[in-house]
Amino acid sequence: MIITNNVKKTKRILNVQKLDNKVIGFVPTMGLLHEGHLSLVRQAKAKSDFVVISIFVNPIQFGRGEDYGSYPRDIKADSKLLMEEGVDLIFCPNQKDMYPSDFSVFVDETELSQSLCGKSRPGHFRGVCTVLVKLFNVIVPDKVYFGQKDYQQALIVKRLINNLNYDIKMYVLPTIRENDKLAMSTRNNYLNDNERKDSRCIYEALSLGKELIKQGETRVFVVVDKMKNVIMKKRSTKIAYIEILDAVNLKSLKKIKGKILIALAVYINGTRLIDNIAISVK
Amino acid sequence: MIITNNVKKTKRILNVQKLDNKVIGFVPTMGLLHEGHLSLVRQAKAKSDFVVISIFVNPIQFGRGEDYGSYPRDIKADSKLLMEEGVDLIFCPNQKDMYPSDFSVFVDETELSQSLCGKSRPGHFRGVCTVLVKLFNVIVPDKVYFGQKDYQQALIVKRLINNLNYDIKMYVLPTIRENDKLAMSTRNNYLNDNERKDSRCIYEALSLGKELIKQGETRVFVVVDKMKNVIMKKRSTKIAYIEILDAVNLKSLKKIKGKILIALAVYINGTRLIDNIAISVK
Repeated sequence: MIITNNVKKTKRILNVQKLDNKVIGFVPTMGLLHEGHLSLVRQAKAKSDFVVISIFVNPIQFGRGEDYGSYPRDIKADSKLLMEEGVDLIFCPNQKDMYPSDFSVFVDETELSQSLCGKSRPGHFRGVCTVLVKLFNVIVPDKVYFGQKDYQQALIVKRLINNLNYDIKMYVLPTIRENDKLAMSTRNNYLNDNERKDSRCIYEALSLGKELIKQGETRVFVVVDKMKNVIMKKRSTKIAYIEILDAVNLKSLKKIKGKILIALAVYINGTRLIDNIAISVK
Repeated sequence: MIITNNVKKTKRILNVQKLDNKVIGFVPTMGLLHEGHLSLVRQAKAKSDFVVISIFVNPIQFGRGEDYGSYPRDIKADSKLLMEEGVDLIFCPNQKDMYPSDFSVFVDETELSQSLCGKSRPGHFRGVCTVLVKLFNVIVPDKVYFGQKDYQQALIVKRLINNLNYDIKMYVLPTIRENDKLAMSTRNNYLNDNERKDSRCIYEALSLGKELIKQGETRVFVVVDKMKNVIMKKRSTKIAYIEILDAVNLKSLKKIKGKILIALAVYINGTRLIDNIAISVK
Protein backbone atom coordinates (compact mmCIF):
# COMPACT_ATOMS: atom_id res chain seq x y z
CA MET A 1 0.00 0.00 0.00
CA ILE A 2 1.26 3.45 -0.98
CA ILE A 3 0.53 6.51 1.15
CA THR A 4 1.15 9.87 -0.52
CA ASN A 5 0.26 13.48 0.01
CA ASN A 6 1.68 14.58 -3.32
CA VAL A 7 -0.64 15.39 -6.24
CA LYS A 8 1.93 14.83 -8.99
CA LYS A 9 3.16 11.56 -7.53
CA THR A 10 -0.43 10.33 -7.18
CA LYS A 11 -1.17 11.21 -10.81
CA ARG A 12 1.99 9.44 -11.95
CA ILE A 13 1.07 6.25 -10.10
CA LEU A 14 -2.47 6.31 -11.44
CA ASN A 15 -1.36 7.04 -15.01
CA VAL A 16 0.62 3.82 -14.98
CA GLN A 17 -2.48 1.92 -13.83
CA LYS A 18 -4.64 3.62 -16.48
CA LEU A 19 -2.23 2.80 -19.29
CA ASP A 20 -2.42 -0.78 -18.06
CA ASN A 21 -6.22 -0.53 -18.51
CA LYS A 22 -6.85 -1.11 -14.78
CA VAL A 23 -10.24 -0.17 -13.33
CA ILE A 24 -9.70 2.50 -10.64
CA GLY A 25 -12.11 2.44 -7.67
CA PHE A 26 -12.17 5.52 -5.45
CA VAL A 27 -13.65 6.33 -2.03
CA PRO A 28 -13.23 9.96 -0.92
CA THR A 29 -13.30 10.35 2.88
CA MET A 30 -12.46 12.80 5.63
CA GLY A 31 -10.80 10.02 7.63
CA LEU A 32 -11.44 8.57 11.06
CA LEU A 33 -12.87 5.64 9.24
CA HIS A 34 -15.76 3.55 10.59
CA GLU A 35 -17.72 0.57 9.31
CA GLY A 36 -19.71 2.87 7.01
CA HIS A 37 -16.55 3.86 5.16
CA LEU A 38 -15.25 0.30 5.22
CA SER A 39 -18.40 -1.00 3.54
CA LEU A 40 -17.59 1.36 0.64
CA VAL A 41 -13.93 0.34 0.64
CA ARG A 42 -14.84 -3.36 0.48
CA GLN A 43 -17.21 -2.79 -2.42
CA ALA A 44 -14.53 -0.80 -4.26
CA LYS A 45 -12.05 -3.58 -3.55
CA ALA A 46 -14.46 -6.23 -4.89
CA LYS A 47 -15.28 -4.32 -8.09
CA SER A 48 -12.06 -2.61 -9.18
CA ASP A 49 -8.44 -3.45 -9.95
CA PHE A 50 -6.83 -0.58 -8.06
CA VAL A 51 -8.43 1.03 -5.01
CA VAL A 52 -7.70 4.60 -3.93
CA ILE A 53 -8.94 6.16 -0.69
CA SER A 54 -8.50 9.87 -0.10
CA ILE A 55 -8.33 11.21 3.43
CA PHE A 56 -8.77 14.97 3.52
CA VAL A 57 -10.68 17.13 5.97
CA ASN A 58 -11.88 19.68 3.43
CA PRO A 59 -11.89 23.13 5.03
CA ILE A 60 -14.16 24.80 2.46
CA GLN A 61 -17.12 22.53 3.18
CA PHE A 62 -17.21 23.69 6.81
CA GLY A 63 -19.03 26.90 7.68
CA ARG A 64 -17.94 29.49 10.21
CA GLY A 65 -18.37 28.19 13.74
CA GLU A 66 -18.54 24.60 12.52
CA ASP A 67 -16.17 21.85 13.64
CA TYR A 68 -13.36 22.08 11.06
CA GLY A 69 -10.74 22.68 13.76
CA SER A 70 -11.94 19.96 16.10
CA TYR A 71 -12.86 17.38 13.43
CA PRO A 72 -10.99 14.25 14.57
CA ARG A 73 -7.97 13.05 12.57
CA ASP A 74 -6.02 9.81 13.01
CA ILE A 75 -4.15 8.94 9.85
CA LYS A 76 -2.23 6.13 11.58
CA ALA A 77 -5.34 4.26 12.67
CA ASP A 78 -6.94 4.87 9.26
CA SER A 79 -3.89 3.54 7.40
CA LYS A 80 -3.89 0.40 9.52
CA LEU A 81 -7.56 -0.27 8.73
CA LEU A 82 -7.06 0.38 5.01
CA MET A 83 -3.96 -1.79 4.87
CA GLU A 84 -6.05 -4.66 6.30
CA GLU A 85 -8.66 -4.07 3.58
CA GLY A 86 -6.01 -4.39 0.87
CA VAL A 87 -6.30 -0.83 -0.38
CA ASP A 88 -3.68 0.13 -3.00
CA LEU A 89 -3.23 3.84 -2.42
CA ILE A 90 -4.09 6.38 0.27
CA PHE A 91 -4.05 9.97 -0.94
CA CYS A 92 -3.92 12.45 1.94
CA PRO A 93 -3.06 15.86 0.46
CA ASN A 94 -1.99 18.90 2.48
CA GLN A 95 -4.38 21.75 2.86
CA LYS A 96 -2.03 24.23 1.23
CA ASP A 97 -1.46 22.02 -1.81
CA MET A 98 -5.21 21.63 -2.26
CA TYR A 99 -5.96 25.31 -1.65
CA PRO A 100 -3.00 27.47 -2.62
CA SER A 101 -3.21 31.18 -1.82
CA ASP A 102 -4.52 31.98 -5.33
CA PHE A 103 -7.42 29.53 -5.08
CA SER A 104 -10.48 31.12 -6.73
CA VAL A 105 -12.33 28.45 -8.73
CA PHE A 106 -15.41 26.82 -7.23
CA VAL A 107 -18.02 24.31 -8.33
CA ASP A 108 -21.61 24.89 -7.36
CA GLU A 109 -24.83 22.91 -7.60
CA THR A 110 -27.85 25.19 -7.72
CA GLU A 111 -31.01 23.04 -7.44
CA LEU A 112 -30.64 19.92 -5.29
CA SER A 113 -28.57 21.88 -2.78
CA GLN A 114 -31.36 24.36 -1.99
CA SER A 115 -32.98 22.21 0.74
CA LEU A 116 -31.92 20.15 3.79
CA CYS A 117 -28.18 20.45 4.60
CA GLY A 118 -27.66 22.84 1.69
CA LYS A 119 -30.09 25.24 3.33
CA SER A 120 -28.92 24.75 6.90
CA ARG A 121 -25.19 24.80 6.01
CA PRO A 122 -24.75 27.55 3.36
CA GLY A 123 -21.70 26.90 1.17
CA HIS A 124 -21.36 23.31 2.35
CA PHE A 125 -22.12 21.64 -0.99
CA ARG A 126 -20.07 24.20 -2.88
CA GLY A 127 -17.15 22.99 -0.78
CA VAL A 128 -18.06 19.35 -1.39
CA CYS A 129 -18.48 19.78 -5.16
CA THR A 130 -15.23 21.75 -5.48
CA VAL A 131 -13.09 19.25 -3.60
CA LEU A 132 -14.65 16.31 -5.45
CA VAL A 133 -13.89 17.84 -8.85
CA LYS A 134 -10.30 18.30 -7.68
CA LEU A 135 -10.07 14.74 -6.37
CA PHE A 136 -11.72 13.31 -9.50
CA ASN A 137 -9.16 15.20 -11.63
CA VAL A 138 -6.24 13.85 -9.62
CA ILE A 139 -7.45 10.24 -9.33
CA VAL A 140 -9.45 9.98 -12.60
CA PRO A 141 -11.46 7.07 -11.14
CA ASP A 142 -13.69 4.71 -13.10
CA LYS A 143 -15.91 4.00 -10.10
CA VAL A 144 -16.70 6.01 -6.97
CA TYR A 145 -18.50 4.95 -3.80
CA PHE A 146 -20.68 7.05 -1.50
CA GLY A 147 -22.95 6.30 1.44
CA GLN A 148 -26.69 6.80 1.59
CA LYS A 149 -26.39 8.42 5.01
CA ASP A 150 -25.42 11.55 3.07
CA TYR A 151 -28.40 11.18 0.75
CA GLN A 152 -28.45 14.76 -0.51
CA GLN A 153 -24.69 14.69 -1.11
CA ALA A 154 -25.06 11.49 -3.13
CA LEU A 155 -27.77 13.05 -5.34
CA ILE A 156 -25.64 16.16 -5.88
CA VAL A 157 -22.53 14.13 -6.73
CA LYS A 158 -24.52 12.07 -9.23
CA ARG A 159 -25.74 15.31 -10.82
CA LEU A 160 -22.20 16.71 -10.86
CA ILE A 161 -20.80 13.60 -12.56
CA ASN A 162 -23.51 13.70 -15.23
CA ASN A 163 -23.65 17.47 -15.76
CA LEU A 164 -19.87 17.88 -15.98
CA ASN A 165 -19.43 14.82 -18.26
CA TYR A 166 -17.21 12.80 -15.97
CA ASP A 167 -16.75 9.24 -17.14
CA ILE A 168 -17.34 7.82 -13.66
CA LYS A 169 -19.77 5.18 -12.46
CA MET A 170 -21.19 6.04 -9.06
CA TYR A 171 -22.43 3.60 -6.42
CA VAL A 172 -24.48 4.61 -3.38
CA LEU A 173 -24.39 2.02 -0.59
CA PRO A 174 -26.78 1.62 2.37
CA THR A 175 -26.26 3.42 5.65
CA ILE A 176 -24.40 1.29 8.19
CA ARG A 177 -25.82 1.51 11.72
CA GLU A 178 -24.66 0.80 15.26
CA ASN A 179 -26.48 -1.94 17.21
CA ASP A 180 -28.94 0.61 18.55
CA LYS A 181 -29.52 1.89 14.98
CA LEU A 182 -27.61 5.17 15.22
CA ALA A 183 -26.16 5.83 11.76
CA MET A 184 -22.38 5.46 11.75
CA SER A 185 -20.67 8.82 11.55
CA THR A 186 -17.29 10.22 12.48
CA ARG A 187 -19.14 12.86 14.51
CA ASN A 188 -20.58 10.14 16.80
CA ASN A 189 -17.16 10.34 18.47
CA TYR A 190 -18.18 13.72 19.90
CA LEU A 191 -20.99 12.17 21.99
CA ASN A 192 -20.64 11.33 25.68
CA ASP A 193 -22.59 8.38 27.13
CA ASN A 194 -25.75 10.34 27.87
CA GLU A 195 -25.73 12.07 24.51
CA ARG A 196 -25.12 8.73 22.86
CA LYS A 197 -28.27 7.37 24.53
CA ASP A 198 -30.29 10.44 23.60
CA SER A 199 -29.17 10.09 19.96
CA ARG A 200 -31.36 6.99 19.65
CA CYS A 201 -34.33 9.33 19.27
CA ILE A 202 -33.12 10.11 15.75
CA TYR A 203 -33.76 6.65 14.39
CA GLU A 204 -36.90 6.35 16.54
CA ALA A 205 -38.28 9.48 14.89
CA LEU A 206 -37.42 8.23 11.41
CA SER A 207 -39.02 4.85 12.16
CA LEU A 208 -42.15 6.52 13.49
CA GLY A 209 -42.33 8.66 10.34
CA LYS A 210 -41.99 5.59 8.15
CA GLU A 211 -44.62 3.72 10.17
CA LEU A 212 -47.15 6.56 10.00
CA ILE A 213 -46.71 6.78 6.24
CA LYS A 214 -47.08 3.02 5.86
CA GLN A 215 -50.31 3.26 7.86
CA GLY A 216 -51.61 5.67 5.23
CA GLU A 217 -50.80 9.16 6.53
CA THR A 218 -50.27 11.42 3.50
CA ARG A 219 -50.00 14.82 5.20
CA VAL A 220 -46.40 15.99 5.55
CA PHE A 221 -47.01 18.28 8.54
CA VAL A 222 -48.72 15.54 10.56
CA VAL A 223 -45.80 13.15 10.15
CA VAL A 224 -43.18 15.84 10.73
CA ASP A 225 -44.92 17.11 13.89
CA LYS A 226 -45.06 13.64 15.43
CA MET A 227 -41.40 13.09 14.57
CA LYS A 228 -40.52 16.43 16.16
CA ASN A 229 -42.22 15.35 19.37
CA VAL A 230 -40.00 12.28 19.54
CA ILE A 231 -36.85 14.37 19.15
CA MET A 232 -37.92 17.12 21.52
CA LYS A 233 -38.55 14.70 24.37
CA LYS A 234 -34.78 14.65 24.89
CA ARG A 235 -33.41 17.77 26.53
CA SER A 236 -30.07 17.62 24.72
CA THR A 237 -31.62 17.92 21.24
CA LYS A 238 -32.14 20.83 18.89
CA ILE A 239 -33.72 20.24 15.48
CA ALA A 240 -31.95 21.75 12.46
CA TYR A 241 -34.58 20.31 10.11
CA ILE A 242 -37.02 17.44 9.70
CA GLU A 243 -38.33 17.23 6.16
CA ILE A 244 -40.24 14.87 3.91
CA LEU A 245 -39.36 15.52 0.28
CA ASP A 246 -39.50 14.02 -3.18
CA ALA A 247 -36.58 11.56 -3.09
CA VAL A 248 -35.57 12.26 -6.69
CA ASN A 249 -35.47 16.06 -6.89
CA LEU A 250 -35.64 17.01 -3.16
CA LYS A 251 -38.63 19.27 -3.80
CA SER A 252 -41.47 19.80 -1.31
CA LEU A 253 -44.45 17.47 -1.45
CA LYS A 254 -48.09 18.47 -1.36
CA LYS A 255 -48.97 14.93 -0.43
CA ILE A 256 -46.80 11.99 0.62
CA LYS A 257 -46.71 9.79 -2.48
CA GLY A 258 -44.15 8.13 -4.78
CA LYS A 259 -40.45 7.88 -3.95
CA ILE A 260 -40.03 9.99 -0.84
CA LEU A 261 -37.24 10.88 1.53
CA ILE A 262 -37.61 11.44 5.27
CA ALA A 263 -34.52 13.37 6.32
CA LEU A 264 -33.42 15.14 9.43
CA ALA A 265 -30.53 16.95 11.04
CA VAL A 266 -30.48 17.15 14.83
CA TYR A 267 -28.01 18.64 17.25
CA ILE A 268 -27.28 16.55 20.34
CA ASN A 269 -25.90 19.37 22.45
CA GLY A 270 -23.29 20.73 20.05
CA THR A 271 -23.03 17.69 17.79
CA ARG A 272 -24.85 17.83 14.48
CA LEU A 273 -26.07 14.42 13.26
CA ILE A 274 -27.98 13.59 10.09
CA ASP A 275 -29.97 10.57 9.03
CA ASN A 276 -32.64 9.61 6.51
CA ILE A 277 -34.90 6.89 5.20
CA ALA A 278 -36.04 6.69 1.58
CA ILE A 279 -39.26 4.81 0.88
CA SER A 280 -41.72 4.20 -1.93
CA VAL A 281 -45.35 5.05 -1.22
CA LYS A 282 -48.08 3.80 -3.55
CA MET B 1 -11.09 13.52 -40.07
CA ILE B 2 -13.97 12.51 -37.81
CA ILE B 3 -16.87 14.87 -37.10
CA THR B 4 -19.11 13.93 -34.18
CA ASN B 5 -21.72 15.54 -31.98
CA ASN B 6 -21.89 12.56 -29.62
CA VAL B 7 -20.21 12.73 -26.19
CA LYS B 8 -19.91 8.96 -25.71
CA LYS B 9 -18.54 8.36 -29.19
CA THR B 10 -16.01 11.17 -28.71
CA LYS B 11 -14.87 9.67 -25.40
CA ARG B 12 -14.55 6.25 -26.97
CA ILE B 13 -12.37 7.56 -29.81
CA LEU B 14 -10.17 9.50 -27.40
CA ASN B 15 -9.83 6.60 -24.97
CA VAL B 16 -8.28 4.57 -27.74
CA GLN B 17 -5.78 7.36 -28.42
CA LYS B 18 -5.00 7.71 -24.71
CA LEU B 19 -4.38 4.00 -24.25
CA ASP B 20 -2.02 4.33 -27.20
CA ASN B 21 -0.18 7.04 -25.20
CA LYS B 22 -0.95 9.70 -27.83
CA VAL B 23 -0.65 13.36 -26.88
CA ILE B 24 -4.07 15.01 -27.33
CA GLY B 25 -4.07 18.68 -28.42
CA PHE B 26 -7.33 20.58 -28.04
CA VAL B 27 -8.64 23.92 -29.26
CA PRO B 28 -12.12 24.86 -28.00
CA THR B 29 -13.93 27.30 -30.33
CA MET B 30 -17.37 28.71 -31.06
CA GLY B 31 -16.81 28.17 -34.78
CA LEU B 32 -16.73 30.54 -37.76
CA LEU B 33 -13.03 30.08 -37.70
CA HIS B 34 -10.58 32.80 -38.71
CA GLU B 35 -6.79 33.04 -38.84
CA GLY B 36 -6.70 33.58 -35.07
CA HIS B 37 -8.25 30.16 -34.49
CA LEU B 38 -6.12 28.61 -37.21
CA SER B 39 -2.91 29.81 -35.58
CA LEU B 40 -3.97 27.82 -32.50
CA VAL B 41 -4.91 24.80 -34.60
CA ARG B 42 -1.54 24.83 -36.35
CA GLN B 43 0.33 24.99 -33.07
CA ALA B 44 -1.77 22.10 -31.70
CA LYS B 45 -1.07 20.15 -34.88
CA ALA B 46 2.69 20.78 -34.59
CA LYS B 47 2.90 19.80 -30.92
CA SER B 48 0.45 16.89 -30.46
CA ASP B 49 -0.32 13.48 -31.91
CA PHE B 50 -4.09 13.83 -32.13
CA VAL B 51 -5.81 17.20 -32.57
CA VAL B 52 -9.37 17.87 -31.45
CA ILE B 53 -11.31 21.06 -32.20
CA SER B 54 -14.65 21.69 -30.54
CA ILE B 55 -17.21 23.92 -32.19
CA PHE B 56 -19.96 24.92 -29.79
CA VAL B 57 -21.71 28.24 -29.38
CA ASN B 58 -22.10 28.05 -25.62
CA PRO B 59 -25.43 29.60 -24.60
CA ILE B 60 -24.60 30.06 -20.92
CA GLN B 61 -21.70 32.43 -21.58
CA PHE B 62 -24.02 34.91 -23.32
CA GLY B 63 -26.00 37.36 -21.22
CA ARG B 64 -29.56 38.49 -21.83
CA GLY B 65 -29.77 40.76 -24.84
CA GLU B 66 -26.41 39.56 -26.13
CA ASP B 67 -25.85 37.95 -29.54
CA TYR B 68 -26.33 34.23 -28.78
CA GLY B 69 -29.16 33.93 -31.32
CA SER B 70 -27.41 35.85 -34.08
CA TYR B 71 -23.89 34.52 -33.46
CA PRO B 72 -22.81 33.25 -36.89
CA ARG B 73 -22.51 29.51 -37.48
CA ASP B 74 -21.09 27.72 -40.53
CA ILE B 75 -20.01 24.22 -39.66
CA LYS B 76 -19.47 23.32 -43.33
CA ALA B 77 -16.97 26.10 -43.94
CA ASP B 78 -15.29 25.35 -40.59
CA SER B 79 -14.97 21.64 -41.37
CA LYS B 80 -13.37 22.40 -44.72
CA LEU B 81 -10.78 24.67 -43.09
CA LEU B 82 -10.01 22.13 -40.36
CA MET B 83 -9.75 19.29 -42.84
CA GLU B 84 -7.11 21.30 -44.71
CA GLU B 85 -5.20 21.77 -41.44
CA GLY B 86 -5.13 18.02 -40.86
CA VAL B 87 -7.27 18.06 -37.72
CA ASP B 88 -8.20 14.59 -36.44
CA LEU B 89 -11.55 15.19 -34.75
CA ILE B 90 -14.20 17.91 -34.70
CA PHE B 91 -16.52 17.73 -31.71
CA CYS B 92 -19.68 19.77 -32.22
CA PRO B 93 -22.15 18.76 -29.50
CA ASN B 94 -25.84 19.64 -29.46
CA GLN B 95 -27.06 22.21 -27.02
CA LYS B 96 -29.46 19.80 -25.35
CA ASP B 97 -26.80 17.14 -24.87
CA MET B 98 -24.51 19.70 -23.27
CA TYR B 99 -27.25 21.26 -21.14
CA PRO B 100 -29.96 18.71 -20.35
CA SER B 101 -33.07 19.96 -18.56
CA ASP B 102 -31.63 18.96 -15.15
CA PHE B 103 -28.44 20.99 -15.63
CA SER B 104 -27.54 22.63 -12.30
CA VAL B 105 -23.76 22.40 -11.81
CA PHE B 106 -21.63 25.45 -12.58
CA VAL B 107 -17.98 26.41 -12.29
CA ASP B 108 -17.10 29.89 -11.14
CA GLU B 109 -13.92 31.93 -10.88
CA THR B 110 -14.20 34.56 -8.18
CA GLU B 111 -11.12 36.84 -8.38
CA LEU B 112 -9.75 37.36 -11.88
CA SER B 113 -13.27 37.59 -13.25
CA GLN B 114 -14.19 40.65 -11.15
CA SER B 115 -12.85 43.21 -13.65
CA LEU B 116 -12.97 43.91 -17.41
CA CYS B 117 -15.33 41.56 -19.32
CA GLY B 118 -16.28 39.76 -16.10
CA LYS B 119 -17.63 43.03 -14.76
CA SER B 120 -19.26 44.21 -17.97
CA ARG B 121 -20.75 40.79 -18.85
CA PRO B 122 -22.01 39.27 -15.56
CA GLY B 123 -22.10 35.48 -15.70
CA HIS B 124 -19.93 35.34 -18.83
CA PHE B 125 -16.92 33.64 -17.25
CA ARG B 126 -19.11 31.30 -15.24
CA GLY B 127 -20.44 30.10 -18.60
CA VAL B 128 -16.93 29.86 -20.02
CA CYS B 129 -15.54 27.97 -17.01
CA THR B 130 -18.49 25.58 -16.91
CA VAL B 131 -18.34 24.64 -20.59
CA LEU B 132 -14.55 24.26 -20.48
CA VAL B 133 -14.72 21.84 -17.54
CA LYS B 134 -17.28 19.83 -19.51
CA LEU B 135 -15.15 19.86 -22.66
CA PHE B 136 -11.98 19.02 -20.72
CA ASN B 137 -13.80 16.06 -19.17
CA VAL B 138 -14.97 14.77 -22.55
CA ILE B 139 -11.71 15.30 -24.45
CA VAL B 140 -9.21 14.83 -21.56
CA PRO B 141 -6.58 16.82 -23.49
CA ASP B 142 -2.88 16.97 -22.68
CA LYS B 143 -2.50 20.42 -24.26
CA VAL B 144 -4.94 23.25 -24.85
CA TYR B 145 -4.53 26.40 -26.93
CA PHE B 146 -6.07 29.82 -26.34
CA GLY B 147 -5.58 33.26 -27.89
CA GLN B 148 -4.23 36.32 -26.16
CA LYS B 149 -7.00 38.44 -27.64
CA ASP B 150 -9.13 37.03 -24.80
CA TYR B 151 -6.47 37.87 -22.23
CA GLN B 152 -8.72 37.72 -19.18
CA GLN B 153 -10.22 34.44 -20.34
CA ALA B 154 -6.72 32.97 -20.75
CA LEU B 155 -5.76 33.98 -17.20
CA ILE B 156 -8.97 32.50 -15.81
CA VAL B 157 -8.55 29.23 -17.72
CA LYS B 158 -4.97 28.93 -16.47
CA ARG B 159 -6.25 29.43 -12.91
CA LEU B 160 -9.03 26.88 -13.48
CA ILE B 161 -6.61 24.26 -14.77
CA ASN B 162 -4.30 24.76 -11.77
CA ASN B 163 -6.95 25.16 -9.08
CA LEU B 164 -8.99 22.16 -10.22
CA ASN B 165 -5.90 19.94 -10.70
CA TYR B 166 -6.33 19.27 -14.40
CA ASP B 167 -3.30 17.62 -15.94
CA ILE B 168 -3.33 19.97 -18.92
CA LYS B 169 -0.61 22.15 -20.35
CA MET B 170 -1.96 25.47 -21.58
CA TYR B 171 -0.53 27.65 -24.36
CA VAL B 172 -1.58 31.24 -24.99
CA LEU B 173 -0.73 32.45 -28.49
CA PRO B 174 -0.46 36.03 -29.78
CA THR B 175 -3.44 37.93 -31.14
CA ILE B 176 -3.69 37.67 -34.91
CA ARG B 177 -4.62 40.95 -36.62
CA GLU B 178 -6.04 42.09 -39.95
CA ASN B 179 -3.81 44.24 -42.20
CA ASP B 180 -5.17 47.38 -40.56
CA LYS B 181 -4.43 45.87 -37.12
CA LEU B 182 -8.01 45.06 -36.08
CA ALA B 183 -7.81 41.94 -33.89
CA MET B 184 -9.34 38.94 -35.64
CA SER B 185 -12.72 38.06 -34.17
CA THR B 186 -15.79 36.23 -35.33
CA ARG B 187 -17.76 39.33 -34.37
CA ASN B 188 -15.90 41.39 -36.99
CA ASN B 189 -18.37 39.77 -39.40
CA TYR B 190 -21.08 42.00 -37.92
CA LEU B 191 -19.37 45.19 -39.14
CA ASN B 192 -20.37 47.03 -42.34
CA ASP B 193 -17.71 48.92 -44.30
CA ASN B 194 -18.01 52.16 -42.34
CA GLU B 195 -18.02 50.38 -39.00
CA ARG B 196 -15.05 48.36 -40.15
CA LYS B 197 -13.16 51.61 -40.84
CA ASP B 198 -14.20 53.10 -37.50
CA SER B 199 -13.00 49.98 -35.71
CA ARG B 200 -9.40 50.98 -36.46
CA CYS B 201 -9.65 53.45 -33.59
CA ILE B 202 -9.39 50.49 -31.19
CA TYR B 203 -5.85 49.58 -32.11
CA GLU B 204 -4.98 53.27 -32.48
CA ALA B 205 -6.09 53.86 -28.90
CA LEU B 206 -4.11 50.88 -27.62
CA SER B 207 -1.03 52.00 -29.52
CA LEU B 208 -1.34 55.52 -28.15
CA GLY B 209 -1.66 54.11 -24.64
CA LYS B 210 1.45 52.00 -25.12
CA GLU B 211 3.36 54.95 -26.58
CA LEU B 212 2.44 57.29 -23.71
CA ILE B 213 3.57 54.70 -21.19
CA LYS B 214 6.81 54.12 -23.05
CA GLN B 215 7.39 57.89 -22.96
CA GLY B 216 7.19 57.69 -19.17
CA GLU B 217 3.57 58.44 -18.27
CA THR B 218 2.77 56.55 -15.05
CA ARG B 219 -0.70 57.95 -14.25
CA VAL B 220 -3.48 55.55 -15.24
CA PHE B 221 -6.15 58.23 -15.64
CA VAL B 222 -4.02 60.33 -18.00
CA VAL B 223 -3.41 57.42 -20.36
CA VAL B 224 -6.99 56.17 -20.19
CA ASP B 225 -8.41 59.65 -20.87
CA LYS B 226 -6.27 60.12 -23.97
CA MET B 227 -7.27 56.67 -25.21
CA LYS B 228 -10.92 57.51 -24.63
CA ASN B 229 -10.56 60.61 -26.81
CA VAL B 230 -9.30 58.48 -29.69
CA ILE B 231 -12.29 56.15 -29.43
CA MET B 232 -14.89 58.87 -28.95
CA LYS B 233 -13.82 60.69 -32.12
CA LYS B 234 -15.82 58.08 -34.02
CA ARG B 235 -19.59 58.54 -33.82
CA SER B 236 -20.35 54.80 -34.02
CA THR B 237 -18.42 53.95 -30.84
CA LYS B 238 -19.48 53.41 -27.24
CA ILE B 239 -16.90 52.46 -24.62
CA ALA B 240 -17.70 49.48 -22.36
CA TYR B 241 -14.36 49.87 -20.57
CA ILE B 242 -10.80 51.04 -21.02
CA GLU B 243 -8.56 49.88 -18.20
CA ILE B 244 -4.90 49.59 -17.30
CA LEU B 245 -4.37 46.79 -14.79
CA ASP B 246 -1.74 44.54 -13.28
CA ALA B 247 -1.27 41.93 -16.03
CA VAL B 248 -0.86 39.08 -13.56
CA ASN B 249 -3.79 39.50 -11.16
CA LEU B 250 -5.92 42.07 -13.06
CA LYS B 251 -6.00 44.37 -10.04
CA SER B 252 -6.04 48.17 -10.25
CA LEU B 253 -2.74 50.02 -10.36
CA LYS B 254 -1.83 53.08 -8.36
CA LYS B 255 0.99 53.73 -10.76
CA ILE B 256 1.82 52.20 -14.14
CA LYS B 257 4.73 49.87 -13.40
CA GLY B 258 5.72 46.22 -13.86
CA LYS B 259 3.80 43.82 -16.10
CA ILE B 260 0.71 45.73 -17.11
CA LEU B 261 -2.30 45.14 -19.34
CA ILE B 262 -4.05 47.80 -21.39
CA ALA B 263 -7.47 46.35 -22.21
CA LEU B 264 -10.64 47.70 -23.71
CA ALA B 265 -14.08 46.73 -24.88
CA VAL B 266 -15.77 49.04 -27.37
CA TYR B 267 -19.12 48.83 -29.12
CA ILE B 268 -19.07 49.81 -32.79
CA ASN B 269 -22.81 50.48 -33.11
CA GLY B 270 -24.15 47.19 -31.70
CA THR B 271 -20.99 45.13 -32.09
CA ARG B 272 -18.88 44.56 -29.00
CA LEU B 273 -15.16 44.20 -29.75
CA ILE B 274 -12.31 43.62 -27.30
CA ASP B 275 -8.58 44.01 -27.61
CA ASN B 276 -5.53 44.41 -25.39
CA ILE B 277 -1.78 44.92 -25.20
CA ALA B 278 0.37 43.56 -22.39
CA ILE B 279 3.67 45.32 -21.74
CA SER B 280 6.46 45.42 -19.19
CA VAL B 281 7.28 48.82 -17.70
CA LYS B 282 10.50 49.34 -15.75
